[in-house]
Amino acid sequence: MTHTSVLAVFAHPDDAELGCFGTLAGLGAAGFDVHILALTNGANSCSPDAAFRPVEAKASAAVIGADLIIEDFVDGALEARRETYSCVADHLARLRPAVVLTHMVGAMDHQDHETAGRATTTMAGRAPYVKLILQAEPPLMNNLFCPNLYVDVTRYMPDKLTAVAKYQSECDKPYVAERAIRERATWWARQAENQDLAEDRHYEAFRVVKAKLDPELLRAFGGRAPR
Amino acid sequence: MTHTSVLAVFAHPDDAELGCFGTLAGLGAAGFDVHILALTNGANSCSPDAAFRPVEAKASAAVIGADLIIEDFVDGALEARRETYSCVADHLARLRPAVVLTHMVGAMDHQDHETAGRATTTMAGRAPYVKLILQAEPPLMNNLFCPNLYVDVTRYMPDKLTAVAKYQSECDKPYVAERAIRERATWWARQAENQDLAEDRHYEAFRVVKAKLDPELLRAFGGRAPR
Amino acid sequence: MTHTSVLAVFAHPDDAELGCFGTLAGLGAAGFDVHILALTNGANSCSPDAAFRPVEAKASAAVIGADLIIEDFVDGALEARRETYSCVADHLARLRPAVVLTHMVGAMDHQDHETAGRATTTMAGRAPYVKLILQAEPPLMNNLFCPNLYVDVTRYMPDKLTAVAKYQSECDKPYVAERAIRERATWWARQAENQDLAEDRHYEAFRVVKAKLDPELLRAFGGRAPR
Amino acid sequence: MTHTSVLAVFAHPDDAELGCFGTLAGLGAAGFDVHILALTNGANSCSPDAAFRPVEAKASAAVIGADLIIEDFVDGALEARRETYSCVADHLARLRPAVVLTHMVGAMDHQDHETAGRATTTMAGRAPYVKLILQAEPPLMNNLFCPNLYVDVTRYMPDKLTAVAKYQSECDKPYVAERAIRERATWWARQAENQDLAEDRHYEAFRVVKAKLDPELLRAFGGRAPR
Amino acid sequence: MTHTSVLAVFAHPDDAELGCFGTLAGLGAAGFDVHILALTNGANSCSPDAAFRPVEAKASAAVIGADLIIEDFVDGALEARRETYSCVADHLARLRPAVVLTHMVGAMDHQDHETAGRATTTMAGRAPYVKLILQAEPPLMNNLFCPNLYVDVTRYMPDKLTAVAKYQSECDKPYVAERAIRERATWWARQAENQDLAEDRHYEAFRVVKAKLDPELLRAFGGRAPR
Amino acid sequence: MTHTSVLAVFAHPDDAELGCFGTLAGLGAAGFDVHILALTNGANSCSPDAAFRPVEAKASAAVIGADLIIEDFVDGALEARRETYSCVADHLARLRPAVVLTHMVGAMDHQDHETAGRATTTMAGRAPYVKLILQAEPPLMNNLFCPNLYVDVTRYMPDKLTAVAKYQSECDKPYVAERAIRERATWWARQAENQDLAEDRHYEAFRVVKAKLDPELLRAFGGRAPR
Repeated sequence: MTHTSVLAVFAHPDDAELGCFGTLAGLGAAGFDVHILALTNGANSCSPDAAFRPVEAKASAAVIGADLIIEDFVDGALEARRETYSCVADHLARLRPAVVLTHMVGAMDHQDHETAGRATTTMAGRAPYVKLILQAEPPLMNNLFCPNLYVDVTRYMPDKLTAVAKYQSECDKPYVAERAIRERATWWARQAENQDLAEDRHYEAFRVVKAKLDPELLRAFGGRAPR
Repeated sequence: MTHTSVLAVFAHPDDAELGCFGTLAGLGAAGFDVHILALTNGANSCSPDAAFRPVEAKASAAVIGADLIIEDFVDGALEARRETYSCVADHLARLRPAVVLTHMVGAMDHQDHETAGRATTTMAGRAPYVKLILQAEPPLMNNLFCPNLYVDVTRYMPDKLTAVAKYQSECDKPYVAERAIRERATWWARQAENQDLAEDRHYEAFRVVKAKLDPELLRAFGGRAPR
Repeated sequence: MTHTSVLAVFAHPDDAELGCFGTLAGLGAAGFDVHILALTNGANSCSPDAAFRPVEAKASAAVIGADLIIEDFVDGALEARRETYSCVADHLARLRPAVVLTHMVGAMDHQDHETAGRATTTMAGRAPYVKLILQAEPPLMNNLFCPNLYVDVTRYMPDKLTAVAKYQSECDKPYVAERAIRERATWWARQAENQDLAEDRHYEAFRVVKAKLDPELLRAFGGRAPR
Repeated sequence: MTHTSVLAVFAHPDDAELGCFGTLAGLGAAGFDVHILALTNGANSCSPDAAFRPVEAKASAAVIGADLIIEDFVDGALEARRETYSCVADHLARLRPAVVLTHMVGAMDHQDHETAGRATTTMAGRAPYVKLILQAEPPLMNNLFCPNLYVDVTRYMPDKLTAVAKYQSECDKPYVAERAIRERATWWARQAENQDLAEDRHYEAFRVVKAKLDPELLRAFGGRAPR
Repeated sequence: MTHTSVLAVFAHPDDAELGCFGTLAGLGAAGFDVHILALTNGANSCSPDAAFRPVEAKASAAVIGADLIIEDFVDGALEARRETYSCVADHLARLRPAVVLTHMVGAMDHQDHETAGRATTTMAGRAPYVKLILQAEPPLMNNLFCPNLYVDVTRYMPDKLTAVAKYQSECDKPYVAERAIRERATWWARQAENQDLAEDRHYEAFRVVKAKLDPELLRAFGGRAPR
Repeated sequence: MTHTSVLAVFAHPDDAELGCFGTLAGLGAAGFDVHILALTNGANSCSPDAAFRPVEAKASAAVIGADLIIEDFVDGALEARRETYSCVADHLARLRPAVVLTHMVGAMDHQDHETAGRATTTMAGRAPYVKLILQAEPPLMNNLFCPNLYVDVTRYMPDKLTAVAKYQSECDKPYVAERAIRERATWWARQAENQDLAEDRHYEAFRVVKAKLDPELLRAFGGRAPR
């Protein structure tokens, strides 16, 4: 493997887009191979067009040239079983990602999110090659979400909006509307910047589960050439 | 200001050394200007040699060429008063650090640590130029400390040990003994690396309060040249 | 006393406006006597016009006909001392409010907020006539705020905006801008309504500390005339 | 639908009676249609008379004219599966309750309680018509239960005691004894009233998960006719 | 020192009696020297007889032959200052207790309780001779108290009731009434025994902060003579 | 039954050894009958020798004369099902242990650990004969483990090391190496003793879930013959 990998593990197609697509775009631009793993095909939508969800997901991932994997667990029935944990573990072992993103655990927003977040946090936490594990904001019912990491995705907002817009079968969900996505990203920008920010910044918000750093990394916070 | 700054705010001389000196050394090597602020002079030690503490602190900071500031709050009496908050705020405003390190809040290990940690976390959280706020492991009574960031300080352990050894007036405290410091750094290495690590790695452990990132930063986790 | 009272206890003039003015307006409309207690005069602002803060606060309270009390604790120096607790206790004993609103405790956003929130939560918790204690959202650094009560203040948004606009001396603070206030109220509307809401709803968000109910109260959630 | 609905979702017949029957009685008196959903038939009791549990449950619900639904999940085997979540979701969609009551999550008192509480909290949290979600006190092992809402059920205690007494098959369980139920309700009265209460008050205790209010509701805390 | 010591550190005379007098009686019977430290004289009571509080405290301690120390911090003004911490530290150093009991931290029930609990927990946690640190139930506002240790004080209830009855100046406080104390002790008995207990058991409840055990200690849970 | 029992319930052979074998040895020496229940046979190891795990477990238990029970749930697939809870309940009912040890809940280190810890904590919490429930340190990913009970196992370290060494099939796991086990026990000794301890002490660390004490027990903390 010539590039370092990022693996985003979420329950349904569209979860990665809503929670961290700007960050994935930024990681891609920074030279990572980006992989998105949807554990179900999202067929449980109210929409009659749910059968198109995998096609939509493909088009969405293509916006940033990400690799998309859709597993065949049943939407709404992603249970805390051995198969779920093994599936996540196998993809981790195959891709050996340095960065892993997944659902927040404990939000009580959707049973599949809880299962996917627990399995991924557990399995990534055991993998020695994983350097960073982040849990993303839930799209609904985020009142227990206490972020401590904010990523400036301003320059990747067009990609994020384009990707979410691929999900035509979801367009009845209010949180996939462009306005809702912009408001959300503006909200996190205000928290990240303590309200001082220019009106046109956009951020995504995360909870750090584990980060393992070389001090060189910290140069990114503003250091310059080594002395 | 030509270099970006780091500010470590702790209650007593020796607190920064025990909690994050390896990380400070790494930040210095990465091109940051490192500033250590001790809010008291540490005169409350049992040792008759406590008067030497500021001299020792100076010698310790010099190991990595850090700037040392010792304020004159009274050791053991660092109270949650306006003066404490203003002092921290003034140093922040003057140095405009990108990275701030301080005590863990809530450890109930020492009243001065609690006050210093609260004042610094509050004031740094309000400062728009601060990009990263970390709380360090308490030297005693760390049973409530739940780290989520580990920094590999292996190459800076000689600096850390040299710095701590400057505190001759503290040598009766078991946690400043070289063996204790090595054991601690090995412990965090095992947690960071899931036990898989070679025997000779050393880490420091932190709790992320807030991080504000540009996606470029994430390249440090393993990305390569941008596409 | 012919009307039942509400008492909002905050550290500075403008805190009540930002955190709960819509709810106070609604309580006033529902027949409560509304009292706003600012423990300091807010003179610690960066603005040279801070001397006008009490005048501004008066004009703001007048928007909804609320009673305004400004105590003379020093802005930035509201410490956890007996005087603070006694002051809050005295106003509670005098007004015997059924509803008390104050700062969130534990946000680490401002030392005065922490002190005011703790003193009020403690003293109101001990007062048998208090039926409802709510902690409001911090204006900055709300990442630890986990609301569980949302109040629809759509019809009181004009009052809220008018009241905040009285604080001309604050207009350099980004979180008092009308746009910021609208965005915040829209954000909470989306959380309260699970995103399903029409675009033009506005809410304020709170944490319930204690509520003591007669089941009749619950009729307000949708019951009709008793059988 | 002419009346607004309340839905209490618990794992076993008798759970709703022990945790919130007084509140349900009060809601009924306030004009709500009260529905009690028991996800299992409670057949796992030690009693040879467990087969009578559904009959007992019917008689108990009749005390306040509540609608009783008993689903056929297996007592002791209520697992976090799709069927459980769908069942709860279907009853929510059918009844569109404004108020939902369920088990506390996280008590580790009974696996069925945990599952029922999680499924109901998740599904009710997603339903836009639900205005109030409350978690009730566990009958055993309540040391992690931190209530913040107390309902005065003094006038409904006879109903509660009559209802619980219907469960003859349970009479070997010490917590269904009348004395235990009275002690419990007196305990919560003392917490609600800060011990100041007359000896003969009785309360039930809850944890607020989510409340969505119109300010008019707040009149119930003591406001009078609108101005 | 021939006997091992126990030190109970509370803010006011009567706090130790309400929270842990049965346990202190049991420790005395088990051969410990029992010391009760009241940091204030309790003069802030509403009662005109508050001047008698130290006399009452003396009479109360005498019930179990405990040593009573009353410090002269001001009731209602026990602040988190150096003098408070030093006072507690000095008594610890003098008595070298194996067991320390104090207020719960975080209850927000009384500012003096918070200060006394924090100072004692911090200082006892740093003392190597302390083997057990327990935080007692708050007499009011215990909704955040999550006990994990229950002590059977049935045989010491007469002592506890006799001791509390010495506080004639407090008799207007509902939580010092004999009935309230019995109800409380019965409540904890039910939690400790999972409701299965005979009607006549009484317990006190605590939160374990730190326990340091020799495995021999564990024999007390039911082992017999060593093999 | 002539002796009082201890029951350690863990997911895999080797979990009890790593988490609490020294304590089990001490309990055995104090006169308890020690029972170790492994819910799976540990066959999911990477090692080709995993088939030998039950034989190894037998040899390990024999070091302290403990009774070993291996149930046949599938390693990696210990799910939160009725069978799991019933199995634990049956062994509890049969052995009626006074002391129960199990996994920490909430560590997100291994799905089987979570299930075993939840089932055991729940079922032991409901059993009136259980006087002490302890959760042991996770062998990996212990950053959320907040111990409050430390057991001095210095004299039982040879037994612990001998027992762990029986697991030849595990010798590729870094945390079963003698050095790792010694480091861990030394770390907890430093926390227990506040670093003051002689270099050669070893401890195990636990979280107290529930303890139910007779005051006589407290004599073990240093009291002497009763008066």
